[in-house]
Amino acid sequence: MPPFDVPEGDPFGPHNLPYGVFSLPGSSHRTVGVRLGDHVLDAGAAAHALGSPYASLLARPTLNPLLAAGRTAWSDVRRALTAWVTVPSHRETVAPLFHPLSSVELHLPFEVADYVDFYASENHARNVGQIFRPDAEDSLTPNWKHLPIGYHGRSGTVVVSGTEIARPSGQRKAPTDSAPVFGPSVRLDIEAEVGFVVGVPSRMGAPVALGDFREHVFGLCLLNDWSARDVQAWEYVPLGPFLGKSFATSVSAWITPLDALEEALVAPPARTHELLPYLDDSDEEPGGYDLRISVAVNGHVVSEPPFSTMYWTAAQQLAHMTVNGASLRTGDLYGSGTVSGPAEHERGSLLELTWNGREPLELPDGKRTFLEDGDVVTLSAWAPGPHGVRVGLGEVTGRVVQG
Amino acid sequence: MPPFDVPEGDPFGPHNLPYGVFSLPGSSHRTVGVRLGDHVLDAGAAAHALGSPYASLLARPTLNPLLAAGRTAWSDVRRALTAWVTVPSHRETVAPLFHPLSSVELHLPFEVADYVDFYASENHARNVGQIFRPDAEDSLTPNWKHLPIGYHGRSGTVVVSGTEIARPSGQRKAPTDSAPVFGPSVRLDIEAEVGFVVGVPSRMGAPVALGDFREHVFGLCLLNDWSARDVQAWEYVPLGPFLGKSFATSVSAWITPLDALEEALVAPPARTHELLPYLDDSDEEPGGYDLRISVAVNGHVVSEPPFSTMYWTAAQQLAHMTVNGASLRTGDLYGSGTVSGPAEHERGSLLELTWNGREPLELPDGKRTFLEDGDVVTLSAWAPGPHGVRVGLGEVTGRVVQG
Repeated sequence: MPPFDVPEGDPFGPHNLPYGVFSLPGSSHRTVGVRLGDHVLDAGAAAHALGSPYASLLARPTLNPLLAAGRTAWSDVRRALTAWVTVPSHRETVAPLFHPLSSVELHLPFEVADYVDFYASENHARNVGQIFRPDAEDSLTPNWKHLPIGYHGRSGTVVVSGTEIARPSGQRKAPTDSAPVFGPSVRLDIEAEVGFVVGVPSRMGAPVALGDFREHVFGLCLLNDWSARDVQAWEYVPLGPFLGKSFATSVSAWITPLDALEEALVAPPARTHELLPYLDDSDEEPGGYDLRISVAVNGHVVSEPPFSTMYWTAAQQLAHMTVNGASLRTGDLYGSGTVSGPAEHERGSLLELTWNGREPLELPDGKRTFLEDGDVVTLSAWAPGPHGVRVGLGEVTGRVVQG
Repeated sequence: MPPFDVPEGDPFGPHNLPYGVFSLPGSSHRTVGVRLGDHVLDAGAAAHALGSPYASLLARPTLNPLLAAGRTAWSDVRRALTAWVTVPSHRETVAPLFHPLSSVELHLPFEVADYVDFYASENHARNVGQIFRPDAEDSLTPNWKHLPIGYHGRSGTVVVSGTEIARPSGQRKAPTDSAPVFGPSVRLDIEAEVGFVVGVPSRMGAPVALGDFREHVFGLCLLNDWSARDVQAWEYVPLGPFLGKSFATSVSAWITPLDALEEALVAPPARTHELLPYLDDSDEEPGGYDLRISVAVNGHVVSEPPFSTMYWTAAQQLAHMTVNGASLRTGDLYGSGTVSGPAEHERGSLLELTWNGREPLELPDGKRTFLEDGDVVTLSAWAPGPHGVRVGLGEVTGRVVQG
């Protein structure tokens, strides 16, 4: 009986159960949905129908109340949801509360508080270093192996998967130009990333230790940190990226809870430098996640970045972000930074894939250095799950349109 | 009859009327207050008592509803408030709704959406360039005269004046150190800035033109962008400031509406470079503000930065921030960047005042390079108002405590 009979091996089976926010056609009513196969369960309605105390967390227009509720509630709600979609006696009650995925509109699943973006892939950082500082002795900056480099981005322009991305305009200046020119970016790029969603806040002055990562972080999503390389190159010295990034950041409509990713935990790469105690995870549980990402342009896969190669873990990023006493809020989002593996076909940006435009990609519809108007970029991913079944991450997609 | 009989020439007379949010002792009820002399008017209660339609904007726990209401409403509300505090027939009704300033608790007056910080003082940028890049041909980076350099900061750690500032810990590495060390910052600094508060949002993809500044920006405040120079120096290449700034940013409890600052408008410094059309303000109304800032450490004035010397205006910053299509939200806050005038006693940071610690300040309680635990930093300011009366800006103060 659909929607319950999800095919065996479906990456969105009952072992996954990611959370999103949806509305039905013609309605402005947003509420929390949980994905099962190619259906969405109205989770708040199910909670009401089954007399669950979690209706107050689920019959809401954003995930923020659930995010704020904390790990015990997260586990309890997940256990309840698992029962609702698997225990036969609930079927009659729950069945009418499913909607085909294709029939609903998906929304930004949570209100973004602060958005931080990191730079945690050694392969990515080395590629960028070699491209922009070819004569440097070391392709990494001196601080790179000592701290997870990050910066704040614009939370007001985080948008849900499917949102069209208008090509940004801005200043750019080639070395040969005598003055900057203004116009639509001619080097519009992607950055394939994973985003981590903070649920439980922390107080100012109270750093979050490595081991407390799971008490604060609810889950993860895919994230495309659209980047105008020409704008960024001209503006970023000395205070970092600004308009080259702030026009849009896309996130997947589905937030995968960390609890669905137990089998995906892996040790991060061996550390080459001794770490200060607040970042030293040598005695911690494995902090990496084995997520296999796929980057497609107009349906053609151009890259398969492996998240397991990230040097800095999400727990280290959280510990670093708060070690100065900065507080966390429910809805804080932080991106991993571009995910690039060691191989050429594992690079998470066109900057790297085309080596700054010098080696165009051959796509079925022609050569590509950076993105053209009309291009659709889709990031998808899966992780190892229980009994060899994959855990699917919700895709993040966006079409570039004329700005 | 106090509170109406504000002394002539009081910088918080009826020509000013800044907005804040207050609560009374023992109460958690927050509501909008308007300052008159050394009293606070419960503006929502006054609106109710006088049957004003603006009660829905004023009887609220934050300024956000008023901010979102737009320029016509801002003018109407200000006109109404002016009448309530000046027309004798209202006195009997309004008098009981005033509270002595010393008896109320002041709160963060608005919910901060995105926080951006600029770098708009040429004197400051040149000082920093000379301190950190003494051998550079030009103390400004090549982009400086072409665009207002800015970056996003952490909105979750914007705090109201009076909040204690815990000294942040972090990584630092002197050039002579072989590896970074961790500990409390030993170079804790201030940055005297002016913050601009966005009221009316804008759509993604719709840049805000220079001439639309006053349609979007409600008012301004004083802002202290506390900075851990040692943390910042080690972390900021290549993606800009992060933990060196994100531990705390203090804003004044009072937001001065732009409508109170008509007489303070001045032309910005002559432009030395031709500007791209979206930044070219040569045909616009004067976009600078003549604000006379004072920086005191433990009550001793150490600097008097003149805001009129800022190269980039707030209108240019807004136009730049949105020219890539980035949207605005109600509650967006952007800082001017450190305000430094050309003279030594006009520098807005200890970094500059002590030339990176090499020339300590002589305070009554001893020498100072950077801040010590217990130091109280207070920024205050005034602007020319009508008939030669000053418009006072609310002060922003903070005591440094052990982290």
